Amino acid sequence: MNKAQIKKVVLAYSGGLDTSIIAKWLQDEYQCEVVTFTADLGQGEEIEPARAKAQAMGIKQIYIEDLRETFAKDYIFPMFRANTIYEGEYLLGTSIARPLIAKRLVEIAQETGADAISHGATGKGNDQVRFEIGAYALMPNIHVIAPWREWDLMSREKLMAYAAEHNIPIETKKGKSPYSKDANLLHISYEGNEIEDPAVAPNEEMWERTVSPKAAPDEETVITIRFEKGDPVAINGQALSPARIIETLNKLGGDNGIGRDDLVENRFVGMKSRGCYETPGGTILLKAHRAIESITLDREAAHLKDEIMPRYAKIIYNGFWWSPEREMLQALIDKSQARVSGEVRLSLYKGNVMVLGRESENSLFDSAIASFDDELAYDHKDAEGFIKLNALRLRIAAGKR
Amino acid sequence: MNKAQIKKVVLAYSGGLDTSIIAKWLQDEYQCEVVTFTADLGQGEEIEPARAKAQAMGIKQIYIEDLRETFAKDYIFPMFRANTIYEGEYLLGTSIARPLIAKRLVEIAQETGADAISHGATGKGNDQVRFEIGAYALMPNIHVIAPWREWDLMSREKLMAYAAEHNIPIETKKGKSPYSKDANLLHISYEGNEIEDPAVAPNEEMWERTVSPKAAPDEETVITIRFEKGDPVAINGQALSPARIIETLNKLGGDNGIGRDDLVENRFVGMKSRGCYETPGGTILLKAHRAIESITLDREAAHLKDEIMPRYAKIIYNGFWWSPEREMLQALIDKSQARVSGEVRLSLYKGNVMVLGRESENSLFDSAIASFDDELAYDHKDAEGFIKLNALRLRIAAGKR
Amino acid sequence: MNKAQIKKVVLAYSGGLDTSIIAKWLQDEYQCEVVTFTADLGQGEEIEPARAKAQAMGIKQIYIEDLRETFAKDYIFPMFRANTIYEGEYLLGTSIARPLIAKRLVEIAQETGADAISHGATGKGNDQVRFEIGAYALMPNIHVIAPWREWDLMSREKLMAYAAEHNIPIETKKGKSPYSKDANLLHISYEGNEIEDPAVAPNEEMWERTVSPKAAPDEETVITIRFEKGDPVAINGQALSPARIIETLNKLGGDNGIGRDDLVENRFVGMKSRGCYETPGGTILLKAHRAIESITLDREAAHLKDEIMPRYAKIIYNGFWWSPEREMLQALIDKSQARVSGEVRLSLYKGNVMVLGRESENSLFDSAIASFDDELAYDHKDAEGFIKLNALRLRIAAGKR
Amino acid sequence: MNKAQIKKVVLAYSGGLDTSIIAKWLQDEYQCEVVTFTADLGQGEEIEPARAKAQAMGIKQIYIEDLRETFAKDYIFPMFRANTIYEGEYLLGTSIARPLIAKRLVEIAQETGADAISHGATGKGNDQVRFEIGAYALMPNIHVIAPWREWDLMSREKLMAYAAEHNIPIETKKGKSPYSKDANLLHISYEGNEIEDPAVAPNEEMWERTVSPKAAPDEETVITIRFEKGDPVAINGQALSPARIIETLNKLGGDNGIGRDDLVENRFVGMKSRGCYETPGGTILLKAHRAIESITLDREAAHLKDEIMPRYAKIIYNGFWWSPEREMLQALIDKSQARVSGEVRLSLYKGNVMVLGRESENSLFDSAIASFDDELAYDHKDAEGFIKLNALRLRIAAGKR
Repeated sequence: MNKAQIKKVVLAYSGGLDTSIIAKWLQDEYQCEVVTFTADLGQGEEIEPARAKAQAMGIKQIYIEDLRETFAKDYIFPMFRANTIYEGEYLLGTSIARPLIAKRLVEIAQETGADAISHGATGKGNDQVRFEIGAYALMPNIHVIAPWREWDLMSREKLMAYAAEHNIPIETKKGKSPYSKDANLLHISYEGNEIEDPAVAPNEEMWERTVSPKAAPDEETVITIRFEKGDPVAINGQALSPARIIETLNKLGGDNGIGRDDLVENRFVGMKSRGCYETPGGTILLKAHRAIESITLDREAAHLKDEIMPRYAKIIYNGFWWSPEREMLQALIDKSQARVSGEVRLSLYKGNVMVLGRESENSLFDSAIASFDDELAYDHKDAEGFIKLNALRLRIAAGKR
Repeated sequence: MNKAQIKKVVLAYSGGLDTSIIAKWLQDEYQCEVVTFTADLGQGEEIEPARAKAQAMGIKQIYIEDLRETFAKDYIFPMFRANTIYEGEYLLGTSIARPLIAKRLVEIAQETGADAISHGATGKGNDQVRFEIGAYALMPNIHVIAPWREWDLMSREKLMAYAAEHNIPIETKKGKSPYSKDANLLHISYEGNEIEDPAVAPNEEMWERTVSPKAAPDEETVITIRFEKGDPVAINGQALSPARIIETLNKLGGDNGIGRDDLVENRFVGMKSRGCYETPGGTILLKAHRAIESITLDREAAHLKDEIMPRYAKIIYNGFWWSPEREMLQALIDKSQARVSGEVRLSLYKGNVMVLGRESENSLFDSAIASFDDELAYDHKDAEGFIKLNALRLRIAAGKR
Repeated sequence: MNKAQIKKVVLAYSGGLDTSIIAKWLQDEYQCEVVTFTADLGQGEEIEPARAKAQAMGIKQIYIEDLRETFAKDYIFPMFRANTIYEGEYLLGTSIARPLIAKRLVEIAQETGADAISHGATGKGNDQVRFEIGAYALMPNIHVIAPWREWDLMSREKLMAYAAEHNIPIETKKGKSPYSKDANLLHISYEGNEIEDPAVAPNEEMWERTVSPKAAPDEETVITIRFEKGDPVAINGQALSPARIIETLNKLGGDNGIGRDDLVENRFVGMKSRGCYETPGGTILLKAHRAIESITLDREAAHLKDEIMPRYAKIIYNGFWWSPEREMLQALIDKSQARVSGEVRLSLYKGNVMVLGRESENSLFDSAIASFDDELAYDHKDAEGFIKLNALRLRIAAGKR
Repeated sequence: MNKAQIKKVVLAYSGGLDTSIIAKWLQDEYQCEVVTFTADLGQGEEIEPARAKAQAMGIKQIYIEDLRETFAKDYIFPMFRANTIYEGEYLLGTSIARPLIAKRLVEIAQETGADAISHGATGKGNDQVRFEIGAYALMPNIHVIAPWREWDLMSREKLMAYAAEHNIPIETKKGKSPYSKDANLLHISYEGNEIEDPAVAPNEEMWERTVSPKAAPDEETVITIRFEKGDPVAINGQALSPARIIETLNKLGGDNGIGRDDLVENRFVGMKSRGCYETPGGTILLKAHRAIESITLDREAAHLKDEIMPRYAKIIYNGFWWSPEREMLQALIDKSQARVSGEVRLSLYKGNVMVLGRESENSLFDSAIASFDDELAYDHKDAEGFIKLNALRLRIAAGKR
């Protein structure tokens, strides 16, 4: 499809300067109509102002949507069922939001008869991959316009000049973060500025969603989380919707200095990248989910989950949420969660999440296995045979050396 | 081999009441000579007193050995190269000590011409498996006597009566821990007593090697750890032996409330078990090792390690250290560590281990990948082709639906 | 449960000498009522004669069932969806039948109020494990009586004497196989006799279900197999029930010398074992299923299946069909098969199964990918970016060495 | 690096028409010196004639090398240690040759001071990826010229016209294969022509290295292969060099109709592709290697190898031979082979490779495990404990449902 054929483009529009410039640039460069799509994914900023901004640029079709519940229920929760961590550290806060945005972009393209979608992700990052692979998987003939790979506005100065030239208002917010950020219900990520050097610790001022462990109250907060079939459903006895669960845990975690992570990760596009992340609610949830699984999940089920987890995490990180392999792994994971119900009690204290107790109506823990009725009793003598046969292959081999 | 054929037994002897009773019981029941083996694995207790106790029971061949350096260098360090964690939580402090004890037991059996070995592990636990599989793998025709699976002294009362009857001194230490414990250089484990109920938190008095995060100083301690080829070699610029590394990190971690873990795990013999663990040095080491790997290890090498890790952990947990599969995985892991050298700076604060920075002469991190010489430059346009071909299979499939 | 408490036992009864002796021995030794269960799993022998034999021993409750369709549909087919092979060779013909028998044994125990089940598997084999683990998983408090681990009739002579003493008729079939055999719809296995030596080839007379490739017709037979959602549903255009599919393929394969396998395998109980197998239908089915998958399955779905297959095979081989880990893997596998439909054309000739062609309404194969409509077109230039970014991590690493 | 900067290019030169055109095109288009590299990898054609052809085009630096032994010893053999198969069928005959060619290209570039390398692989295939990733991994700043992605000679007609125009001799060999082929010591691959349709069987005339099973002698050929540490070292008692081993097995296999494969595979670049392969020697070798492993390899070592094999195969298929992940897996694989020595006897007959026997001085097979000396004896009673504890987790779970 060549430029001239593109008549309408759906843009993932945050309302900020960069995507405003993109909206304008698309209109100019492609001489096409632009449809904006702005979603509340829990980033903590009003999305309604995006409407006026879009209107000011002459946009006719403006989609503004609160997707927090969908995001929590259909993306975050399934991922947490797997205790998902990328490279031992990263809770995938950005990665997990992208497939939902990709899905809405192509759905809106279909609704509005658009030929293309566009986004503001740069040409060196993971997000371009996640948006585009997601979109292609759902709508194979969609055209994608990635301005950062196409235009020549490659410096802040050029962008500012372009904005000025085209009357795009530049809000010079005081205290605007000097970092490249991504925020949603699950986390805030930070890149750039001083943290480009992995030897340097971030400035304390960078963090927005958590206090420092040092600044957190010198008193623990004790909470309980109730799980049903692998998903959290209530906090301190109060049933909450999925998004409210995450928000509540974010507040609890953030107040207690929980959920900061500072790491160097490997991008799908091939380079290493320093990132700092705040995932207060997710950090609590991961610990709690493992705890409820520890008493309700069969050993081999748990081990199988642990062994496939890194691959599942990589699939999500790399942008393949909408792929058969992710769906296959999800089927395996979901199958395991049928009896993962119960309650976990946790202490939150200055950056620490400590499990105080776990209880479940489905508990497989039996402190008195010896007191089973006769037939189920654990016979100490069984251990001998168990050991002997487990060792047999090694004994034979040793005997032959 | 029947009872009468057994002339000499090597006993893993701690010097404590239980293994003293076993020593006596073996002499009586098997009418055999007993050789005692007592090792300093960093449990934090004097081992020399075991000599007098053994002599008092008429033991002639007494082995007392300081194995701390071997334990750290040839067992703990190789395991930490893999960032090994069992079931997402447990750092395998007990599991990793058993193969070394098994090895010495059979070596001493060979040196002393003993027919059998014996240990004080119970019939429901993992340790019997680890001792015995290790021994069988190294000396396939060794006979193993596991008194706890054999005798009828199944209650504390009967044991006490036996001890009294046979003049085995019962030290009624004040404040003796009511928990079943295992201590070594890497950790202390606790089982039993109130923590048999997974819904109940342990008493604060249980913990011996760490202060509570709440009781830790309200001030961070900043340290650096230097790694060479995947192993820690210096702390704060000071080169230390392997055991001294762990001891130093234990002190640093313990003082700062670091390394407590409270979990329910799945035993190899088939039941769930509540355990509490203190692994202050190991907790710091794991975090630091991941950090140095994050800048020195190739992405796919790191992912491969992460994917095989749960299996490697399970192998060690289940007692198969001396097996071809462990050695094969170790070869894979060790191969990856050739360039994992550098320094990690960490903040220790009230239970938290936070990475402040990582540096390496082998760093693969390049903040300015764009500033490569021409040929290596990252071309934003490359991303388009990369995405297109990664999405191709999904597009074809979507196009056929 | 002690002997005296056992009032009724369900016995897996083949009607042959060994299980007839067991039936008698149970009545004598346990003074209990015996319920016999005889199933037609496609072993190729009449099962109805077992009724008279059982009656002759005074058995009152006699279950005789044709389970061939269930066996094919709910056990063989799900397993073949995964292209399951144990240790690169074995198609698991015995392993896959055991869970069905275990299931019926415990169901009958529940129906008849029996306290125990019994079987004729020996103490060194895999089948005892498969029967018993299956039974325990489905009915945890069932008692299992394994006469071969219990009685002292450990030689053929003693068995014969026992049979004579108890008037159990010994049919001295002419040409009775000197091998230890297991036969069902999927295969016949052979152990023992001259093949106990892995250096020795089996006598040609051993094989029952297949002619030798040398004796097969010197002319190929061409067939087509139709698959729906991963399962075979028709042969040469004729829709057939699951069991009929296998039977038909067995005939076709057997006539053409297809499906013999001769191998040394590793038993779960720890030793190596020589086995010869005839799986004519299964051998054809495996080849055909891979062929239909080759055009209908996504690449990463296929690779994920291939990577988990050895573990899935091991789970079945070891007897853990009725386990959460098998069910989790089955969920993953089944998820992948939704579009695995189409037809495969095969040539059968003197031991060879050769794919001649595959076609599917869901084919993902596109010989003219370049002739896609514009948007889907494969652009040769994309390959450059794809390669560049895939190589990036290696280039960076090489640049730093 | 721009075109003008390129002064010298090393070309992987077969001596055929396509790479002759490339040699000319590079001289014209890049105005650069061309160095040709022609290797004997066992493709079965003389390589010396390439010299005259290159000279005729004015090439000064001409590398002609016999790499068969290196190819067999350092590439084919290590791969076969893993029983490597891609997607259940493909023995990777093309894939395994590419890293050696890539290595020599960059070594020659370094020796001759060339700036770039070039190859004749097309823009839709796997080989471009393998050549280029291999080259980049070994020499990160090398420039790669892939004419098929760059020029406009995209049809046979245009190529012919170019050849005519530039006096490149077009040998109109009678009977020239209409397929796109790749031949080396391990295999010949075929693509294109009628086999572009996966529903259509190839013409019998296509196959070059094997007779049809139907045309093969109606008499079996019995051979023995001797292995040392996982590699074949002798056939029928005669020690042979690595390349001679493969050649000999190719002849034996080819004469007996062994080693044809016809499949649809998934390319790394994202599309499915039909390929036919002849790998006579490799097919025999795979079967024989599994057979010798079956008696010399520990069970868990074998299973670990089987589980990582698909990933190892994919790494090689995708072109990542020169990567840390391949080297890590190789370390694991090689570690397993220390005792994989012994002899396998095979029958070759009309497409079939059948194992007749296996023997080894390191055999772990023990037909008389019961006759072990007392201590090693297999006690039937052990099986009960083994089963009981293996079932324990399932019983507990079933008891709680």
